[in-house]
Amino acid sequence: MSARGFAQAEYEARLTRAQALMSKAGLGGLLLTTEPEIRYFTGFLTRFWESPSRPWFLIVPAAGDPVAVIPSIGAALMGRTWITDIRTWPAPRPGDDGVSLLAATLDEVAEGPVGIPSGPETHLRMPQADFARLRAKTARFLRDDAGITARLRAVKSGAEIDRIAHACRIAARAFARVPEIAAPGMPLSQVFRRFQMLLLEEGADWVPYLAGGAGPLGYADVISPADDRPLARGDVLMLDTGALWDGYFCDYDRNFAMGTPDPRVLSAHDRLLGAAQAGLEAAQPGARACDVHAAMARICGADEGAGRLGHGLGMQLTEGLSLTAADRTVLEPGMVITLEPGVETGGGNILVHEENVVIRQGGAQILSPWADTLARLA
Amino acid sequence: MSARGFAQAEYEARLTRAQALMSKAGLGGLLLTTEPEIRYFTGFLTRFWESPSRPWFLIVPAAGDPVAVIPSIGAALMGRTWITDIRTWPAPRPGDDGVSLLAATLDEVAEGPVGIPSGPETHLRMPQADFARLRAKTARFLRDDAGITARLRAVKSGAEIDRIAHACRIAARAFARVPEIAAPGMPLSQVFRRFQMLLLEEGADWVPYLAGGAGPLGYADVISPADDRPLARGDVLMLDTGALWDGYFCDYDRNFAMGTPDPRVLSAHDRLLGAAQAGLEAAQPGARACDVHAAMARICGADEGAGRLGHGLGMQLTEGLSLTAADRTVLEPGMVITLEPGVETGGGNILVHEENVVIRQGGAQILSPWADTLARLA
Repeated sequence: MSARGFAQAEYEARLTRAQALMSKAGLGGLLLTTEPEIRYFTGFLTRFWESPSRPWFLIVPAAGDPVAVIPSIGAALMGRTWITDIRTWPAPRPGDDGVSLLAATLDEVAEGPVGIPSGPETHLRMPQADFARLRAKTARFLRDDAGITARLRAVKSGAEIDRIAHACRIAARAFARVPEIAAPGMPLSQVFRRFQMLLLEEGADWVPYLAGGAGPLGYADVISPADDRPLARGDVLMLDTGALWDGYFCDYDRNFAMGTPDPRVLSAHDRLLGAAQAGLEAAQPGARACDVHAAMARICGADEGAGRLGHGLGMQLTEGLSLTAADRTVLEPGMVITLEPGVETGGGNILVHEENVVIRQGGAQILSPWADTLARLA
Repeated sequence: MSARGFAQAEYEARLTRAQALMSKAGLGGLLLTTEPEIRYFTGFLTRFWESPSRPWFLIVPAAGDPVAVIPSIGAALMGRTWITDIRTWPAPRPGDDGVSLLAATLDEVAEGPVGIPSGPETHLRMPQADFARLRAKTARFLRDDAGITARLRAVKSGAEIDRIAHACRIAARAFARVPEIAAPGMPLSQVFRRFQMLLLEEGADWVPYLAGGAGPLGYADVISPADDRPLARGDVLMLDTGALWDGYFCDYDRNFAMGTPDPRVLSAHDRLLGAAQAGLEAAQPGARACDVHAAMARICGADEGAGRLGHGLGMQLTEGLSLTAADRTVLEPGMVITLEPGVETGGGNILVHEENVVIRQGGAQILSPWADTLARLA
């Protein structure tokens, strides 16, 4: 896995599937504004989304190729994708930040109502004031996209799975080197920095996500940034990463015992491994997300704080289905998910464990090298 | 600079200023949904925003303290901020992902219309379908925030400026070590990885942004990710970083000549340094953003592709004013901006240069160590 980018056929296939669904939903086009949505149909990959200053738009018409309506600063990069119809304006231009151009282009290329991703996990990446202006300017009716964009992205192609697997292997090599960077006395913030360096050294393009925690009985939550408190003998250290390669994420964690762990940590970790194994076995095509959740929750208990025991994974750290009791999404081959059980250890602490798998015809296939024991350091 | 977080008085002062502006604007509260907006009033700092699965809400009422309406997974971390009124629901729960709880809380704590950031650079971080449900459920009229949130964030406190300066010093140490990681024959993607590692090693918490490019006459744009092409003797390499410390960004770049640069590169770089100097001198309190732009454009020309020659900087890589011909924002002490001239070198290539400064009573003060020459490598 070293060649970056997809063949044009990959994008053409995505477009064909989108247009079939749009036809069924009675949509004349899709209007996309966020990084993963626009990248899904174009391959436009840049870290420039970190800047909120400029809006970006992609129109996927019911017939014909997508049309990019973007700030001129992005024209060169978009010109290197398969998109040929690229219309630009000199953003930022607060008086009319692409709104007139977008409205005119929508009216030209979308023959019918225009769908905007509006369901769970979506947002509209443009100022609300500009959205009101757009609605006033375009002749097209703007409505929800009937979940089309999310549905397409939920099932990954072979090329997408290869990238996630590559990101998982990078993280595996970095996790194997944690003994080089973590020891009693070292501040957690320093461990976080060094772990990101390991991920980069092992081949990650960048590291959009790292969380973790450390303590004798685990950690109070799994979303806090690191503080400068030093690791202590007897702590269990957890590192949970989302590292990126060619625009695709891994998302899994590992726990490390600093010396001899508390017996409650050992037994909690065993339950986590058992729950992950149960999730792996339950994650068959045709099973529902809630079935996988139930298989894991039977062993680890459904942790209220963490809310869910896994989720979809791909161009975003989390996307698509949730392994909760309420999610009835049916697993299909090509879906990539995380198995992320959590257990309480006492005193308000939890221990979590996470693996990544892809749903295949015969059952789930492991992407993150499966952990079979609690690693010991120091 | 090593202690993280702000004193509670910092947040109280922000709240007091917000409430004074809300009173003038006739607002009963603000509804905030994005990372920087919520962090500005709470100190809630996490990389978990990388996950799109859960919405987060903060209500800043016209009187009284802010109220957090958030997924239960964030309760522990929010509980460590100064916020005491924290209301949670077990997200993700697509049927009612906090909407009822948010509507009830708005009706309880906001006495009058509720302002939502709606102007340039803003977006509403919640699904549009949920926003429609919220409007139907709440008794409060939802409108724009009259620009209050953006206006408050534009002028930085001393503690904020200290953090940006700290991030700038981290990047300066990393830039000084570029000779360790860049040489002819090395793939640009590898240089990008290694530079991120240097930033981390020198103290960055994480590296949300890195862009750059390399070629004999510069680069085609400044937003592309690195490819695997090796650096060549005669190239000029540019690295532009947004590194973060305690939630605040630096954003500046450096150019490095691999051996002897093309004379056009040398002369372009001289013009860039001259333009940055002119920008520094023009960036006086009372001057307008367009005045600083004009001072720089006189020397470097206004580059259409880049669109602007600098911008505000702080909790986001870019925020607030733009150094364009159209932006009449008046500079005030405490504003932190970038000076980012660009020039064309030929063949569709450009060279850019960027520095960070803070506006002070007597004039602009340099935060990024000022470059006075084109660095040479190899």
